[in-house]
Amino acid sequence: MLVGGKAYHSVWMEGLEVCMIDQTRLPFAFVEVRYSDYREVVHAIKTMVTRGAGAIGAAAGFAMAQAAFAARKTENYETALQAAREEIASARPTARDLFDSLAQVHKVALQSPEAALEKAIQLADANAEAGRLIGQHGKKLLREGMGVLTHCNAGWLALVDYGSALSPLYAAHTDGIRFRVYAGETRPRSQGGRLTAWELGQAGMDYRVIPDNASAWLMHQGKIDLLITGADRIAANGDTANKIGTLEKAIIARHYSIPFYVAAPSSTFDFDCKDGSSIVIEERNEDEVTHQSGPDESGQIRKVRVIAPGTGVENPAFDVTPRSLITGYITEKGMFKSLPFEEKR
Amino acid sequence: MLVGGKAYHSVWMEGLEVCMIDQTRLPFAFVEVRYSDYREVVHAIKTMVTRGAGAIGAAAGFAMAQAAFAARKTENYETALQAAREEIASARPTARDLFDSLAQVHKVALQSPEAALEKAIQLADANAEAGRLIGQHGKKLLREGMGVLTHCNAGWLALVDYGSALSPLYAAHTDGIRFRVYAGETRPRSQGGRLTAWELGQAGMDYRVIPDNASAWLMHQGKIDLLITGADRIAANGDTANKIGTLEKAIIARHYSIPFYVAAPSSTFDFDCKDGSSIVIEERNEDEVTHQSGPDESGQIRKVRVIAPGTGVENPAFDVTPRSLITGYITEKGMFKSLPFEEKR
Repeated sequence: MLVGGKAYHSVWMEGLEVCMIDQTRLPFAFVEVRYSDYREVVHAIKTMVTRGAGAIGAAAGFAMAQAAFAARKTENYETALQAAREEIASARPTARDLFDSLAQVHKVALQSPEAALEKAIQLADANAEAGRLIGQHGKKLLREGMGVLTHCNAGWLALVDYGSALSPLYAAHTDGIRFRVYAGETRPRSQGGRLTAWELGQAGMDYRVIPDNASAWLMHQGKIDLLITGADRIAANGDTANKIGTLEKAIIARHYSIPFYVAAPSSTFDFDCKDGSSIVIEERNEDEVTHQSGPDESGQIRKVRVIAPGTGVENPAFDVTPRSLITGYITEKGMFKSLPFEEKR
Repeated sequence: MLVGGKAYHSVWMEGLEVCMIDQTRLPFAFVEVRYSDYREVVHAIKTMVTRGAGAIGAAAGFAMAQAAFAARKTENYETALQAAREEIASARPTARDLFDSLAQVHKVALQSPEAALEKAIQLADANAEAGRLIGQHGKKLLREGMGVLTHCNAGWLALVDYGSALSPLYAAHTDGIRFRVYAGETRPRSQGGRLTAWELGQAGMDYRVIPDNASAWLMHQGKIDLLITGADRIAANGDTANKIGTLEKAIIARHYSIPFYVAAPSSTFDFDCKDGSSIVIEERNEDEVTHQSGPDESGQIRKVRVIAPGTGVENPAFDVTPRSLITGYITEKGMFKSLPFEEKR
């Protein structure tokens, strides 16, 4: 997508360096970072310098390729590869793409680092193309004057390009359809209020940020006609793990008979995962809830405590929405009212 | 309630001064403020130095009494009283108690300022006593080992004392029943994470703060057995206006068949209000969503931007939960599975 007239991916390779837009600095600063060691990439994934299932998947593939070049300098190539794979796999537990991309690049890396790099780039490009196609398929859902609620950030920052949930919105907007997007703030990390709002602003869309608490009231008022989110992992039965709060929005949308679509590349489908109960849900640091950071009036970034001192916190990063609450899935292969079970890869 | 061994009300009179705990400074500082002019009290209500239906009602009554003493020094006592009443009424639009208390004190003020003061104190004391009785009636809902979700702050800070939603929890805890309270953060002003957490911590309860987004996931996991909130205004048909997000929690609780009780003094019932559709919902400043404040690592309070610059926001302060989603009401007169319609005052 364009930022200040220049086309960007969320993560990309330059030579043997993994480059990414530092999403912890957005929306207050637009900064590129680059890493020459795969361990730095693992750290960047852990600390959410890059985040979003597609971007994490691409970064993990790139890291695996970097690790292959490093492994060539060690005594036992295969052992070093395996160790690196395990290290990268430990970065985040929930998103399917990370493990999928890692497995594919690791397999090819057994041939050569060059083949691994080629594979990693190919997977990242495929993720960007999947984002584009999701937009083309999903844009049929948008109508003039609609209100659309999205949660977290499933925009181009979360994939390699285009996005999943936001891609149909961008495509419809490009076609001249005008509608309003409501971006749920998405506490605790506020990716909706920070990243989605920033993306939508860059794209010149009509949007508003709302507190997560306000979505039911907006639906009651008839302001929301469509709920659309991304996904971190979709089980074989259609149960969908996504950012904490997705389940909440899905239940409310059903209460008000508002359709809920999950947009995700088919790499998000995990056919080895029978249903949502076997998806590992990451519990993240309490600090994400108890503190917030951002610029003060002078522009300096400061971290402040926003919750009473001494308070314990539960901070599950994701939840699982049962298939029964999902109206349909938008993938690069088309839009499905029920799961494309036959398409096992 | 006790703070550092000393008994406090959230608002009280000393002579002709209205005193209150500054809730904008909590939980980071415990500060008493005092006002000798009713206009200062109006400003304090507007800026939420005091908040919560019961505390606002008491403060409005005290302000009306102050205004009566000031009106005695003017040429036309009744005109001055009426002007003050309108000014106080404009402070916040949603909570029933403000208008109820204001009308009662204004009526008596037509006799004398002394009578107004006596009436205002009597109403505040009645609010505290209602809180105590709500606790005694509502504590029957609590069982050993339960998980209880509450939203916003309906504790002793929100009433004059004891609280509404929290009063049954305090009473059960005092009786030796042990359970865990989940306090929803309650963005944008985070009264759950700041005030309820602070209250529960002071009372030595077992509690956790959760992001507003996490409540459905906790219910899915079986961690929540009861939802209990306060109310700002209850219409004649039982529809209940309360902090934004209450509707959301009520829908989710119903989805998981978890009982939802509304706890409020009977002064919250507005029998002139047919149903929820005629309750005025306050839209508050965007700034509440786009910025957060709290102490930095050195303890200095700073305000930081947490949402992308240039972003528009919708910030409704309350929503209305339909009667059909409410299991029962806890008032000082008892616990009701349906509305005590016959008790029109």
